[in-house]
Amino acid sequence: MADASDPLVVGVDFGTLSGRAVVVRVRDGAELGTGVHEYRHGVVDRELPATGRPLPPDWALQVPEDYLDVLRVAVPAALADAGVDPARVIGLGTDFTACTMVPVKADGTPLCDLPEYAGEPHAYVKLWRHHAAQPQANRINELARRRGEKWLPRYGGLISSEWEFAKGLQVLEEAPEIYAAMDRWVEAADWIVWRLTGRYVRNACTAGYKGIRQDGAYPSPDFLAGLNPGFAGFVADKLEHPIGSLGDRAGGLTAEAAAWTGLPENIAVAVGNVDAHVTAPAAGAVRPGQMVAIMGTSTCHVMSGDVLREVPGMCGVVDGGIVPGLWGYEAGQSGVGDIFGWYADHQVPPEYHERARERGIGVHELLTELAAAQRVGEHGLIALDWHSGNRSVLVDHELSGVIVGQTLATRAEDVYRALIEATAFGTKVIIESFNDAGVPVTELIVAGGLLRNPLLMQIYSDVLDMPLSAIGSSQGPALGSALHAAVAAGAHPDIRAAAEAMGSVRRAVYRPDRAAADAYRELFAEYLRLHDHFGRGGNDVLHRLSAIRRAAAEGAGE
Amino acid sequence: MADASDPLVVGVDFGTLSGRAVVVRVRDGAELGTGVHEYRHGVVDRELPATGRPLPPDWALQVPEDYLDVLRVAVPAALADAGVDPARVIGLGTDFTACTMVPVKADGTPLCDLPEYAGEPHAYVKLWRHHAAQPQANRINELARRRGEKWLPRYGGLISSEWEFAKGLQVLEEAPEIYAAMDRWVEAADWIVWRLTGRYVRNACTAGYKGIRQDGAYPSPDFLAGLNPGFAGFVADKLEHPIGSLGDRAGGLTAEAAAWTGLPENIAVAVGNVDAHVTAPAAGAVRPGQMVAIMGTSTCHVMSGDVLREVPGMCGVVDGGIVPGLWGYEAGQSGVGDIFGWYADHQVPPEYHERARERGIGVHELLTELAAAQRVGEHGLIALDWHSGNRSVLVDHELSGVIVGQTLATRAEDVYRALIEATAFGTKVIIESFNDAGVPVTELIVAGGLLRNPLLMQIYSDVLDMPLSAIGSSQGPALGSALHAAVAAGAHPDIRAAAEAMGSVRRAVYRPDRAAADAYRELFAEYLRLHDHFGRGGNDVLHRLSAIRRAAAEGAGE
Repeated sequence: MADASDPLVVGVDFGTLSGRAVVVRVRDGAELGTGVHEYRHGVVDRELPATGRPLPPDWALQVPEDYLDVLRVAVPAALADAGVDPARVIGLGTDFTACTMVPVKADGTPLCDLPEYAGEPHAYVKLWRHHAAQPQANRINELARRRGEKWLPRYGGLISSEWEFAKGLQVLEEAPEIYAAMDRWVEAADWIVWRLTGRYVRNACTAGYKGIRQDGAYPSPDFLAGLNPGFAGFVADKLEHPIGSLGDRAGGLTAEAAAWTGLPENIAVAVGNVDAHVTAPAAGAVRPGQMVAIMGTSTCHVMSGDVLREVPGMCGVVDGGIVPGLWGYEAGQSGVGDIFGWYADHQVPPEYHERARERGIGVHELLTELAAAQRVGEHGLIALDWHSGNRSVLVDHELSGVIVGQTLATRAEDVYRALIEATAFGTKVIIESFNDAGVPVTELIVAGGLLRNPLLMQIYSDVLDMPLSAIGSSQGPALGSALHAAVAAGAHPDIRAAAEAMGSVRRAVYRPDRAAADAYRELFAEYLRLHDHFGRGGNDVLHRLSAIRRAAAEGAGE
Repeated sequence: MADASDPLVVGVDFGTLSGRAVVVRVRDGAELGTGVHEYRHGVVDRELPATGRPLPPDWALQVPEDYLDVLRVAVPAALADAGVDPARVIGLGTDFTACTMVPVKADGTPLCDLPEYAGEPHAYVKLWRHHAAQPQANRINELARRRGEKWLPRYGGLISSEWEFAKGLQVLEEAPEIYAAMDRWVEAADWIVWRLTGRYVRNACTAGYKGIRQDGAYPSPDFLAGLNPGFAGFVADKLEHPIGSLGDRAGGLTAEAAAWTGLPENIAVAVGNVDAHVTAPAAGAVRPGQMVAIMGTSTCHVMSGDVLREVPGMCGVVDGGIVPGLWGYEAGQSGVGDIFGWYADHQVPPEYHERARERGIGVHELLTELAAAQRVGEHGLIALDWHSGNRSVLVDHELSGVIVGQTLATRAEDVYRALIEATAFGTKVIIESFNDAGVPVTELIVAGGLLRNPLLMQIYSDVLDMPLSAIGSSQGPALGSALHAAVAAGAHPDIRAAAEAMGSVRRAVYRPDRAAADAYRELFAEYLRLHDHFGRGGNDVLHRLSAIRRAAAEGAGE
């Protein structure tokens, strides 16, 4: 039965490997039910599903139909889990990985859904972690520096290969027929809202952070022509579109989408948003200096500030990019949980898997337990956490992982711990950059799946030598999307009010251990030395290996 | 029935993990039968077998009773395999890993066999790859340099932590009561001959290469006192002993040893020798410039030369150290097959083991097969092969492994291939050092277990840009020991004649592929850059990590 006095909203978080829906009570943020659906095709990084065509290194694609399956499966599952009457739901909000780009026809149909393009890699969704557009990104940065483009400092001085322009230029240059065929180059965050409402609204967050939209304008046709004459019309032809503000109503739920989800037709659908950015208000982080680290396959750091500063290597600063009226800063680590997952899947021997199975735990839990028994430094390893490139502060996706100190006595738990520590050192580099730039980080609030690992959290607290707060919800992005849905539906006046009512945080749940923090200071100095040597030109071997790897793979494909 | 006209000899090779006996025909080197026995305790590097007492990092011990089991099991097995009358056997020769040291009482009883010392790590055999005496080695080198000791250049300017003096000094300083209790500090190569003949004869090879015996003398008491006043009498009290030449008869087989082995009492037992050095004549390498690389868990490079030169980072040059009348040069890589074994055992995920099992092959074969399908450079990795330290040319056992270039797409076969390549690059560094020093390597003959891996051999040929010859026997050291047994028994006049009759080599069985050799030149340059950065002081992180690891482990043991 509908309970009009206690309305609900649904938030849907589209992650790298799965989508998650949550049913949330508008008045207090209580999470009443959850549904999860794993993408059938996951991350397509070895070969195209349609044809088995092998993909070059650094590619990462997705299949858009997988996203619709989340609406069909996870939303009804969440409603069933909550056991509520769907008629009580007054709004739907979504968030997405970014920058994840869909090439579409004018009606929103992804090119890869058209039979004539199903065998063409460039017709698919380019996932955020598609890193093969680095040469294009390099040229964008070089030209922007030479021309003194004013927007460049807003992105820490570097445009990422992950973003809209580099990926778009790669399509033009490697598959001009696909570039010509695509009427729009759309953020997946907006594509899903388009499918829900029948209307394309470009959200302010990705337009600013990933689309180089600053002070209401994009890079000029003149600049674009300097990259490639055929790219001059990129903004006008493929990108430019009316902007929706965060928390605005993009439109009403269509009958088709209502049928997919089981939700009432025409309820408010919020403007698209990004997983990291919606999480900040879900963690109650709406004041300057409160950094939220959303730690999952990758880590995004978002923080509002009351001043505009240039932070080297930040991903971007966007006016109102997180909360209206403040500058929204973003930084990130492109591989975190992904690295642990890679390690557990591809470098851990059978006996660990067997022991874990016998004890009914996961291999990550077993490795964590073994690693937790060690003293700081006991494994004798230092790793650089660049297996998926480096987003902040080096903004360089041709970097790769490094590990030093392995011996014949090195065991899986040693490397596992070293990789956790490497990502913590990476976070420390980012926080120090913000502090040094005059936008100090006064509190670190952790959200995301890695919160579940107490060893990892303690290591971060020790490495950073800071207490760590934790988001109250285990599904921060989905809760944040629900919070935006409530604003879009008019149930809360704005995001701040919604954060106050629906967000939650537990303060200082981890505190640094004095001895460990001291020991990590020494290891962090080693990390920094390796970081600068391999990341700032001391030895450019990682770039050369990337080029050699690419050339060898191209030769092999001949 | 005894066939006096066609006598046999037995060679026994004591390796790192097992001992192997072979029955060989004196007139032509035909190998008639083989027996192998794995040491029950293997390498003791985690905890003492007697008490479970944990060992610090870098320790590697063995249990001497395991060696006697080889005599009891492998020799009779080889005789049975050959199906020959043991009465035809006229001599027994042995070779051993080196420098592997046994602390013994005056009658040859190992201290660890005495109940009062069974719980004391220093009472056990220190295997060649025991690397915990590096601080002692550092002090030996520093003092020798300061005093301008004439013997130092004979060892490439550096005395290894693996050798008799560093290990002996470690015993004195860490367990003075054990040092006091040990009447002799004996090479395992000589200890086994002592057990076979009842006589202690110190062999010229280890005395020269591992015992710093040059021009008939050892380091002076004055020098030793400078290391530690209690060490002044080390040579006189624990080490000095009459020397036996290679191929000499150490004594006759005792009744006890005849009973162990099933061999006739009182047959000739050759003076002890080293696995690598006995292999050279077994491969027919008795001329200057013929380098034999014995590739197994580690690699030893032995080569005779007609001139005395100082080769940086060589392990040593000893007059008549391999063949009488020539200077015997030795170099080495302390981890080769050990590294591949470590990787296969500790870093390869279950599905590879399952696939290998399903196909009835080993995981090394599967990894090799997958790695063989790659082009040079395709995996994008460079590794430093220092997981067990670096013997030549850096002579530094506090170095450790490095791998750069890992991504989320890196798979086990990628790392496996990179590790093979790293060891090939390490060999190239050694050969170039000999060439540069005026003792050119004109032929490389490979012996040892890794000969069985054709991918590895081809990679070595491509990296070195040299043809590779191969020893004719799959059990080179044991054949070499048999060859020395024949000389000791007087069946051949000297080692050269025995090598002529009994040795065998297949010339240029692998030849470099032009394109691969060119591609590897570029990767070798990357290896060298990393080698010098991490190995020659560009960044001393590996030394610092080793110290941190040791301190953390000591702290944990409190």
